[in-house]
Amino acid sequence: MPINPDQQSQIDALRATPRQTLRAVSEGMEKHLYLAHEVLDHGFVRVVDYMGDDAAIVQAARVSYGAGTKATRDDAGLIRYLMRHWHSTPFEMCEVKLHVKLPIFVARQWIRHRTANVNEYSGRYSILDREFYIPAPEHLAAQSRKNHQGRDQVLEGEEAERVLSLLKEDAGRAYDHYEAMLSEEGQQGLARELARMNLPANIYTQWYWKTDLHNLFHFLRLRADSHAQYEIRVYADAICRIVADWVPHAYAAFEDYRMGAVQLSAKGVDVLQRRLRGETVTQETSGMSKGEWREFAAVWGEAE
Amino acid sequence: MPINPDQQSQIDALRATPRQTLRAVSEGMEKHLYLAHEVLDHGFVRVVDYMGDDAAIVQAARVSYGAGTKATRDDAGLIRYLMRHWHSTPFEMCEVKLHVKLPIFVARQWIRHRTANVNEYSGRYSILDREFYIPAPEHLAAQSRKNHQGRDQVLEGEEAERVLSLLKEDAGRAYDHYEAMLSEEGQQGLARELARMNLPANIYTQWYWKTDLHNLFHFLRLRADSHAQYEIRVYADAICRIVADWVPHAYAAFEDYRMGAVQLSAKGVDVLQRRLRGETVTQETSGMSKGEWREFAAVWGEAE
Amino acid sequence: MPINPDQQSQIDALRATPRQTLRAVSEGMEKHLYLAHEVLDHGFVRVVDYMGDDAAIVQAARVSYGAGTKATRDDAGLIRYLMRHWHSTPFEMCEVKLHVKLPIFVARQWIRHRTANVNEYSGRYSILDREFYIPAPEHLAAQSRKNHQGRDQVLEGEEAERVLSLLKEDAGRAYDHYEAMLSEEGQQGLARELARMNLPANIYTQWYWKTDLHNLFHFLRLRADSHAQYEIRVYADAICRIVADWVPHAYAAFEDYRMGAVQLSAKGVDVLQRRLRGETVTQETSGMSKGEWREFAAVWGEAE
Amino acid sequence: MPINPDQQSQIDALRATPRQTLRAVSEGMEKHLYLAHEVLDHGFVRVVDYMGDDAAIVQAARVSYGAGTKATRDDAGLIRYLMRHWHSTPFEMCEVKLHVKLPIFVARQWIRHRTANVNEYSGRYSILDREFYIPAPEHLAAQSRKNHQGRDQVLEGEEAERVLSLLKEDAGRAYDHYEAMLSEEGQQGLARELARMNLPANIYTQWYWKTDLHNLFHFLRLRADSHAQYEIRVYADAICRIVADWVPHAYAAFEDYRMGAVQLSAKGVDVLQRRLRGETVTQETSGMSKGEWREFAAVWGEAE
Repeated sequence: MPINPDQQSQIDALRATPRQTLRAVSEGMEKHLYLAHEVLDHGFVRVVDYMGDDAAIVQAARVSYGAGTKATRDDAGLIRYLMRHWHSTPFEMCEVKLHVKLPIFVARQWIRHRTANVNEYSGRYSILDREFYIPAPEHLAAQSRKNHQGRDQVLEGEEAERVLSLLKEDAGRAYDHYEAMLSEEGQQGLARELARMNLPANIYTQWYWKTDLHNLFHFLRLRADSHAQYEIRVYADAICRIVADWVPHAYAAFEDYRMGAVQLSAKGVDVLQRRLRGETVTQETSGMSKGEWREFAAVWGEAE
Repeated sequence: MPINPDQQSQIDALRATPRQTLRAVSEGMEKHLYLAHEVLDHGFVRVVDYMGDDAAIVQAARVSYGAGTKATRDDAGLIRYLMRHWHSTPFEMCEVKLHVKLPIFVARQWIRHRTANVNEYSGRYSILDREFYIPAPEHLAAQSRKNHQGRDQVLEGEEAERVLSLLKEDAGRAYDHYEAMLSEEGQQGLARELARMNLPANIYTQWYWKTDLHNLFHFLRLRADSHAQYEIRVYADAICRIVADWVPHAYAAFEDYRMGAVQLSAKGVDVLQRRLRGETVTQETSGMSKGEWREFAAVWGEAE
Repeated sequence: MPINPDQQSQIDALRATPRQTLRAVSEGMEKHLYLAHEVLDHGFVRVVDYMGDDAAIVQAARVSYGAGTKATRDDAGLIRYLMRHWHSTPFEMCEVKLHVKLPIFVARQWIRHRTANVNEYSGRYSILDREFYIPAPEHLAAQSRKNHQGRDQVLEGEEAERVLSLLKEDAGRAYDHYEAMLSEEGQQGLARELARMNLPANIYTQWYWKTDLHNLFHFLRLRADSHAQYEIRVYADAICRIVADWVPHAYAAFEDYRMGAVQLSAKGVDVLQRRLRGETVTQETSGMSKGEWREFAAVWGEAE
Repeated sequence: MPINPDQQSQIDALRATPRQTLRAVSEGMEKHLYLAHEVLDHGFVRVVDYMGDDAAIVQAARVSYGAGTKATRDDAGLIRYLMRHWHSTPFEMCEVKLHVKLPIFVARQWIRHRTANVNEYSGRYSILDREFYIPAPEHLAAQSRKNHQGRDQVLEGEEAERVLSLLKEDAGRAYDHYEAMLSEEGQQGLARELARMNLPANIYTQWYWKTDLHNLFHFLRLRADSHAQYEIRVYADAICRIVADWVPHAYAAFEDYRMGAVQLSAKGVDVLQRRLRGETVTQETSGMSKGEWREFAAVWGEAE
């Protein structure tokens, strides 16, 4: 259960008391505030606060571009132009603060994105809850044979059952022993900062995570991508849906110019230009390595 | 004139239309929103947006410290504790976005603080306004003889007049020639990105500047300090007054633990401990260099 | 003259005394060390120090990918793979420190790249030299009529002469008055931190600038680009030549995947795929705006 | 065993082949290059590369302060001055790259320092080794009763034995099951990116970690401090010894002005000044809270 009744009543209280502000307000984002969007079996993403909206991006850009822009281009068009030409600073003028509950092995991938502010629940100071991520059967995938860091078919039958019961039993036992080591009944009780080392990487932690829209888009491009690990991708997907409501124009530009975009190398540009002129280009005549050609052909097809 | 009538009517419109939000609201900050606090002869600082308040700092810290803290320490006390022990991440959970108009030589000092987002008015794209910083007579100071980067007495009489007229005439002439080079009447007109090189460092520019409260405090500690150049210090002072209204508990802790604080070196600790025990310590017996002793004695006095 | 005899003899001394090290050495970079590559009329770029080489990128990547990679892919291939798939951290493991002399209006563009360490010559502390950037006649360009932040034809005849003489005279006069205000002969002498405000944006400053290879590539992609202002592009071009000698494999990958690359939006991908299938696509049927189509057609041509 | 024979022979090869360079060389650092300084039971810190030395700090500062400094202050004195006055940029001009092997729960604290470059061994791509941190008996401490995030007495007798055997057995079993889930014998084999979630936080990981000297000092001040968790403090201590050899002047200044320094709040300054004048000040008359007074009195004593 991602949110307990106590937490829910705090959320309800916050959502029941709107206040007046002179700041920019995004109606699409207000409806998400504080609500826990469930992710995985016990995780969530909650919007705690935000700054700015689509108009704030335009407003910041117009300081940098000066008066006169207004007449020639509407807001959505300017946002598309900024995104297309990699003008990142106006997108940095929006900020979002999320409360995220997530397994530690996901948190370790996430934290590699350094341009963000983080406050994590401390296992030195507090006792962690007994909550572990156990994959749903349809996400229990075999190691890919082709790709060192990928997944293949879903495990089936006895193997799947064996894996699930190992994960559950080991997590439960590790937590029992964590509690036993911490216990101060009839013994001193091990320090929290030491006892936590017994807990596995699928235990849940939580943090406040704050970043600007430009860096959030960078995170989403890498983590909502099909090559990202499923367990972080579902968080990125949940955030994508939130951002689409918060800054609809910026998100649409992001989808077109980042998520759905394709980067062509100089060699790739050359191959496509030759093909458009009617030439048949093969890997041998492309100048690309086999691996690169394979990735290229996945988008553009092989020459017949 | 820092704000023209057109801009003032935009500000008035924004201030006349409060909206509802579920976010944290700082009443103290709402009253500053959009208003231009005048700085120097043509500059200003305006709050464009903010995220969080004193309670948001505590809320973020409590994720990192977990439940149970509530009972033992109230908000102001926890904020003081966090500041005293250099826990910076909860302060990073507040964010502010300012619109600042400032001379270029001040902007060049300001931009050295890299952990911020900036959108500056572009002299490549737009034509800069004819506005220059000319020091008030009481701030026209002589070079310090003791300190390579300091000021001494205020200039007087003819010398002061000569300096003021040179600054005014050179700025005016440089701007006249800037306009003459840009003009497209009867000639092609020089590119804006080139013409701007003729303008002096006291011309005003403007930017949107967004940073978190931790990094803002770092900026204020260095720039509201008595050793900072007067022309940037007045901006820092104006921001201090805004922050005091925005997050009063955090600002009070900042004043006590940062602005009014003194850092004692290991040698300084030793000297004070000896003095408290009644020993007379001189520079010779302190282990400090002469320069260091001079700075130390300025706070703690010489031994009699 | 970018380097005076005193500085040259210091450089000569440093270049005359090789020492032994166990660190990674790039022979291609050693030959650049300390030498001033001249840029513009008085500027330069000098390599002061560097860390790492092509092999260091591979070595760092192999910690992150573990043993076994060695067999399947050679160094150049792995570097190309990392660049193609936006794995930035291995490139961050190389670092370079440059000494750059550049006009202030160029420095103000440069400093927007925040992920770098900078130590600038201080006009608060020291007296700036009498050296200004005056464009060569072939770079004295008119304002573009189509592009707010671009250049057009080179100015000619009287207009060119007028501009050059204004730039020279204003710079010289501003510097004369700077000296006059600073002078302590028969007067107190204005503080340096104030007098510098009279100097125009084409005066030269200098700094130490240190960054990692990933962020340097980002800088070069934006500033060695044809849309960058000429006066910063020549610095980027000089650095490109240095980097090509320092890390030849990484630089070749950068040229193919960044400098020579083309980013296709989702709409752009769709249009090219339709064209490859033989369809004629026009702006109207592309889903792109006119501005976007113009940029697209500049690379891919119009449909006949 | 922190280093296996294969790795050792690679290290030996690197140490046997010095090369010539024109760069700044720190003799004190050269002797550390590549050697594994053992930390905890299986961890290490190795210097992989470095940039700069004490002279490089001075050199960078002198660009920012200009000519003329040379005469008035020697290198060590200037470095002390820079450290005392929080001039951080010259220290950013030195860089170090470390290879560290450390338990995951230590890595999670370490990574909070965001201003660094990191390449970690990937559990998605590779199989982790069977190596766990098991505290030595003298570091198996009880939870502090006074401090939520502290340690108390060492555990003794049966309790200590029970904890050690739980930690060992759970780690061993978790690893056995990790291997069993990965195995492709007679089954598909679970994906590595999933199997790793079963591993506890005391398993060792390794990474390349690169940072500049200013940020390294910040890390060391927090992590070599007596309030830091023992398991990260021993890494910080090992790095302190390396830095003392690398940049002896800077390290001495760091010890005096950071590690051994005491920050006095405005209230603390007031109390000490009153005491020096002979006044007796108590908590009640100090203006400090009880908690703050306790920390103050720990350094300065109670009034008699």
